[in-house]
Amino acid sequence: MNHRNPQSTRPQPAPVPDVGQPASGPLTREELQLAARNHSMPLEALRREVTPPGLHYVLTHFDIPDQDVSSWRLRIGGAVGRAMELGMAALRRDPAITVPVTLECAGNGRSLLEPRPLSQPWVMEAVGTAHWTGVPLAYLLGRAGVLPGAVEVVFTGADAGIQGGVPQRYARSLPIREALRPDVVLAYKMNGADLPPQHGYPLRLVVPGWYGMASVKWLESIHVATAPFTGYQQQVAYRYQSSADDDGTPVSRIRVRSLMVPPGIPDFFTRRRFLRAGPVMLEGRAWSGEGAVTAVEVGIDGTWLPAHLDKPAGGFAWRRWSLPWVADRGEHVLACRATDITGATQPLEQNWNFQGMGNNVVQRVNVTVE
Amino acid sequence: MNHRNPQSTRPQPAPVPDVGQPASGPLTREELQLAARNHSMPLEALRREVTPPGLHYVLTHFDIPDQDVSSWRLRIGGAVGRAMELGMAALRRDPAITVPVTLECAGNGRSLLEPRPLSQPWVMEAVGTAHWTGVPLAYLLGRAGVLPGAVEVVFTGADAGIQGGVPQRYARSLPIREALRPDVVLAYKMNGADLPPQHGYPLRLVVPGWYGMASVKWLESIHVATAPFTGYQQQVAYRYQSSADDDGTPVSRIRVRSLMVPPGIPDFFTRRRFLRAGPVMLEGRAWSGEGAVTAVEVGIDGTWLPAHLDKPAGGFAWRRWSLPWVADRGEHVLACRATDITGATQPLEQNWNFQGMGNNVVQRVNVTVE
Repeated sequence: MNHRNPQSTRPQPAPVPDVGQPASGPLTREELQLAARNHSMPLEALRREVTPPGLHYVLTHFDIPDQDVSSWRLRIGGAVGRAMELGMAALRRDPAITVPVTLECAGNGRSLLEPRPLSQPWVMEAVGTAHWTGVPLAYLLGRAGVLPGAVEVVFTGADAGIQGGVPQRYARSLPIREALRPDVVLAYKMNGADLPPQHGYPLRLVVPGWYGMASVKWLESIHVATAPFTGYQQQVAYRYQSSADDDGTPVSRIRVRSLMVPPGIPDFFTRRRFLRAGPVMLEGRAWSGEGAVTAVEVGIDGTWLPAHLDKPAGGFAWRRWSLPWVADRGEHVLACRATDITGATQPLEQNWNFQGMGNNVVQRVNVTVE
Repeated sequence: MNHRNPQSTRPQPAPVPDVGQPASGPLTREELQLAARNHSMPLEALRREVTPPGLHYVLTHFDIPDQDVSSWRLRIGGAVGRAMELGMAALRRDPAITVPVTLECAGNGRSLLEPRPLSQPWVMEAVGTAHWTGVPLAYLLGRAGVLPGAVEVVFTGADAGIQGGVPQRYARSLPIREALRPDVVLAYKMNGADLPPQHGYPLRLVVPGWYGMASVKWLESIHVATAPFTGYQQQVAYRYQSSADDDGTPVSRIRVRSLMVPPGIPDFFTRRRFLRAGPVMLEGRAWSGEGAVTAVEVGIDGTWLPAHLDKPAGGFAWRRWSLPWVADRGEHVLACRATDITGATQPLEQNWNFQGMGNNVVQRVNVTVE
């Protein structure tokens, strides 16, 4: 087995989506191990427009690589006029942009599904928004000179492992038209500081509007391809499938979603919320990778009310919403539901799929008002 | 219910340790919710002497408070000659020290126990080492003037919630002799930067050598007490108990422990390790809150070999260990076991207790060499 370059654009063996059939049974040891490694964003961090490292969600398929920036190089090759190899000092001399981007894991909400696909068991907090600074990918592709016939760009990270029986380094592709968008960035800073190790140090891709799997971390190689990429993370993982036998469709842009800061104080174990009667500001954030969020409704015991929307920080950054509520004593169920400019709105019931992708079901919060 | 000052030194109602009896059944929804909120340290981060925010473990009982440093004040009162109220600017003018400290959650390893106490279901990675900078607690207590009769110092954070049926702000005490140690610090910096929100911004206590529950985050009040503190986190939680009826003994210093960087590459779902035959450096870190780590042995298929120990960065910071291994093809079980200066060594079998505290059982790593 060759751990360094196990993938190519050659067809893979028959797809083996992760670990077999979804389960109706209890959480497994393997899922707990993944939950211990991969971090979600505590919902109270929704109060912050920008999510600090350590609160932003992190999903690492394999291990976090130790990267030595003095020997690290980014290779750009394939169907380009001028293949290049760049160190970090050279990249920092290139023009830089900063984009505020909400990233969400495509598997967010997976553990809520029934039956439950066996993978990272996110509840609903696999999200975060950061300001990413770096070189526009389009600028570097322009310097390299994309040749006619290019259809995709393949991004490969330093992180290596085995998934679905396939040894691999984490790799994903983007269609050439997406790769040439002006806001797709090769980021070396997060919120103004060097990338933390777990966010891809020293360099990662950030693709605004797409689920997080597209934003390849620990980036080492950019390959302009003349045929669609068939690596595991493209052809097998990250697909909307109805069953193991269904080829399905690729996961791409983030479906519209909103989340609420649970009001009041929690019970440690159940996380049930307790609140004193009286006025309280319900608030949260909403986002969509398809375009602007146009409305958020707040459900209070089944009655939907329109929330106030603040301006978003950018085209693919979340938007704060708020609604004052006068809480009266008793048990209440709160919910929030966003709609985007395409008319898409969050479902009230789960949309199940075989890999547990894109579950943007409405969040519900049980509150005891005393 | 009074959420601001619900605790005193008056006796509490009968102890209600968390959520009832330990379970032999599968992981619950509640445990998964806690695993999603509370972060452990991916084991590959053991390669780093200093753990960056986002990789260091975090356990938050309630919600992470939003602290406005302009209105934030630290109150020092109780059995002191001069009660004080200090802002952050004043604290930053006081003498500062920096201490490298390994912090570990007292509940680390809980999910491995059988039956399993129902609480945060740590696997084994609830640890991290940081450089904490701030004012020595003893300096401020000296300025305040501790009166005769003082027996404990009670630390209260801004984080509020309900646990075991008791509304509370998170609060813990230290015996006066521990509080006056020169290395106990009121920290406002972690690894040279302002504390991240999840690590107690703007100020936290750091008690070197003690499990993490003693290092109160989001600190707002220091109260010198003339009677033992009986708050929930002191009298009910964080005790070594044999059963619900056992008063037990308080959890205090960190038991000796070592962990290994799992060698090779992982399978995504099972985290099983795969390695190529040949030489590999096994490495990890070891620590104890009772005193220096004096030996680490590495178990290879049941044979124990002494590891090389590097110098620790400080009295209560972990110590790197390493051992070269020539891996031959086949299945192997690796382990590591540390001993400290008191002669305490890690157990090969679990020491069960009712709350799942201080489980320092030897780590075992299954490796397939190909």
